[in-house]
Amino acid sequence: MTPGQFREEGKKLIDRIADYYEHIEEYPVLSQVKPGEIYGMLPEDPPLRGESFDRMLEDVDRIIMPGITHWQSPRFFAYFPANASFPSILGDLLSSGLGVQGMLWATSPAATEVETRVMEWLAGMLDLPASFRISSTGGGVIQDSASSAALSALVAAREKATGFGSNTSGITSRFTAYISTQTHSSLEKAVKIAGIGRENLRLIATDGNFAMRPDLLREQIAKDRSTGYTPFFVCGTIGTTSSNGMDPLRQIGEIAREENLWMHVDAAMAGAALICPEFRHFADGLELADSFCFNPHKWMFTNFDCDCFWVTDRRHLVNTFSILPEYLRNKASESGEVFDYRDWHIPLGRRFRALKLWFVIRHYGVEGLRHHIRYHVELARDLARKIRESDHFELIMEPPLNLVCFRYKGSDEENMDLMQKINSQGTLFFTHTKLNGQVVLRLCIAQTNTSKEHADHAWEMIRRSVTR
Amino acid sequence: MTPGQFREEGKKLIDRIADYYEHIEEYPVLSQVKPGEIYGMLPEDPPLRGESFDRMLEDVDRIIMPGITHWQSPRFFAYFPANASFPSILGDLLSSGLGVQGMLWATSPAATEVETRVMEWLAGMLDLPASFRISSTGGGVIQDSASSAALSALVAAREKATGFGSNTSGITSRFTAYISTQTHSSLEKAVKIAGIGRENLRLIATDGNFAMRPDLLREQIAKDRSTGYTPFFVCGTIGTTSSNGMDPLRQIGEIAREENLWMHVDAAMAGAALICPEFRHFADGLELADSFCFNPHKWMFTNFDCDCFWVTDRRHLVNTFSILPEYLRNKASESGEVFDYRDWHIPLGRRFRALKLWFVIRHYGVEGLRHHIRYHVELARDLARKIRESDHFELIMEPPLNLVCFRYKGSDEENMDLMQKINSQGTLFFTHTKLNGQVVLRLCIAQTNTSKEHADHAWEMIRRSVTR
Repeated sequence: MTPGQFREEGKKLIDRIADYYEHIEEYPVLSQVKPGEIYGMLPEDPPLRGESFDRMLEDVDRIIMPGITHWQSPRFFAYFPANASFPSILGDLLSSGLGVQGMLWATSPAATEVETRVMEWLAGMLDLPASFRISSTGGGVIQDSASSAALSALVAAREKATGFGSNTSGITSRFTAYISTQTHSSLEKAVKIAGIGRENLRLIATDGNFAMRPDLLREQIAKDRSTGYTPFFVCGTIGTTSSNGMDPLRQIGEIAREENLWMHVDAAMAGAALICPEFRHFADGLELADSFCFNPHKWMFTNFDCDCFWVTDRRHLVNTFSILPEYLRNKASESGEVFDYRDWHIPLGRRFRALKLWFVIRHYGVEGLRHHIRYHVELARDLARKIRESDHFELIMEPPLNLVCFRYKGSDEENMDLMQKINSQGTLFFTHTKLNGQVVLRLCIAQTNTSKEHADHAWEMIRRSVTR
Repeated sequence: MTPGQFREEGKKLIDRIADYYEHIEEYPVLSQVKPGEIYGMLPEDPPLRGESFDRMLEDVDRIIMPGITHWQSPRFFAYFPANASFPSILGDLLSSGLGVQGMLWATSPAATEVETRVMEWLAGMLDLPASFRISSTGGGVIQDSASSAALSALVAAREKATGFGSNTSGITSRFTAYISTQTHSSLEKAVKIAGIGRENLRLIATDGNFAMRPDLLREQIAKDRSTGYTPFFVCGTIGTTSSNGMDPLRQIGEIAREENLWMHVDAAMAGAALICPEFRHFADGLELADSFCFNPHKWMFTNFDCDCFWVTDRRHLVNTFSILPEYLRNKASESGEVFDYRDWHIPLGRRFRALKLWFVIRHYGVEGLRHHIRYHVELARDLARKIRESDHFELIMEPPLNLVCFRYKGSDEENMDLMQKINSQGTLFFTHTKLNGQVVLRLCIAQTNTSKEHADHAWEMIRRSVTR
């Protein structure tokens, strides 16, 4: 493909993407295809000779589009969102176009230094404690996902606890790590990968608002110490996935300090709300944490993948992950004047992901981002009010932010049927969880383009599904 | 940004990217900025109000471009490449535009099923053993990097060796893993993350062609068993990073079978050559492996990140990584009829990366891809011939494929000086390694647009740097 053809095909594709967003509400939000349907439409063998771009785009319409669940639809209320926005798409396009691999500072200084600056901007925007800033011993790095951030934190914590002994000699202690029953499943995954074992992951019960109970945390740690375990890690959450439960970070952090545990704070979605001063109370006690992450790819309009991860002592990351083969040696690294981000996470190679984040922050501005976050929270509160006033539904808890948990006053089965019936109609998509042993329906109001009209429509669909 | 503005700005950006590739040879390949230079040009605080796209693009020119090391320049011969191509950039743009998150089949069936099909295409193109195909118990999945693939393989191997005991109870055995002295550093990183400990990673010496010596592997395993260790994993490489050394997979595989070790094969760059029948002898014995990976983002014109990873028993991956919180439960997963790729790797979320690979394979066609691979190998052989014939340089080994290792007949310091002097001039960029304790210069001929003219120019620059 020549640059001339790229200009032509690229512009066609830009138009198609714009068309897509103009017509996105015409698609069923949840793809309605059956298992194997898309696979069966794709030829068994790759083409021997090249095909035209037009032919490929025809297949996108014919084969791919029916198999898309439309995460960018303003009628998407499922899970946590994975938001894109136009400036983010363009930042990502520029990143693909430049095609740099920023594993080392030297392999593209801009990739490292824009990332450092944008992470510092975000630390300020979220009002993170000074210990997370590069002017202190801390610093931030972009990871693909909160799962990888959690694993990085857990492994660094394991090494800190053993003076880097596990890195050297393998695991020899009987470690225990602590989360709540509501903490994200990625922590269990991390504990398994890191060789800790899921039996050694303690699930602390939560209170009526699905927040970890510090008294039970303290009890469990004491019990574990008395039976020869080495407690080393606790994860607090700002906005759990099931219900947006808010863990008492200050109390957990005080215990972590006393007990010499690494505290990681997972704010995957809700962290974005910290850009608004009125929501920063959820982060009270964060200065006691050793690491923190949130995903701009969830509620900050920056397309997947983009998790922002900070630590208060970057040496722990570097000491944990650093490898230095001869073929990567270079003067800049040896000078000690630069960050080589490959030592801050699992993969060696890295895409220039800071570009899209830089574009998003500059396009919206801090006030613009706050505006969208506040609007979503307002829509969630409005929906919660309607649910509270309805005869047939009950609100499970006041939404702390943008996630509304509720249920039809009927059986679990009736709730699941109601949800599946509505989702199969395609005009919205929402999902469920279980809280206190009961099926609970969740609407997360966080998609970039969701407006009052969309939230109202969602509620009307749900309300009418049982009253007619 | 409205869809209308996106059309306008997006088309401008497409033109800029085309301009970039038309003028890419005018930039110094290796960025010449100093540490902190880019960071210092970026404002200390983010803007409160949104800025125009034009202003952002001006800053791209003014601030970003001087800090780019041009991986897409046809004069880039450093490390291993991270290639883009126009169809890949467009596939990636479509992926950003659709913005789907394919963690589960249900969250966008097309993302999963196109990936499955493309991985099957590639398995056929590379002529992988039938055991890696989904019609058997195997299957492939896209990972971000060969580092993550290696970690996934290592952890699955650890679980297979303990009947998933480490996942459950944590590591209690004294494991040992085996690589050669030439194996990529990501294996050491994986061993540390997985809690095995780098002291328990055995580095087996290589022969004159930098290939692992099976006799020493066998000896080391015996020695470890006799001292109470549990050998569980060996990694063979097709094309080591320093020299493109080719491990004897059949002999290693036979030992792995006898000793009940998981054999992973890392073909990060050189794997792409397996699409040409004449290079498949490097994969002889691959039917004895348990996992295999190569990176289309290296030498198959598909932009970073895109590592293709196959296993012969997908249940080992799923059993190792699976987590099933209520909020991710869905009918399709429970039916058992679909793949949920989040269980095949570390992160939960996943981008629709198969699109760019689908675009690349269809755009070039199998024959087109072979043509480019063969052309690069031919250029490398031509360069090797010139080095062999020169008075001042010596060829370290015959290049098995596209990586040429050589040195100036002088001291290590003279070699490093020569390289740094040329790199600082900016018309090409190449890197070094150490082999047999000596500094060796490497030119990897693999960039999408590298032609004979570029390879000849590189050699002229190097040759003339010592003869004038």
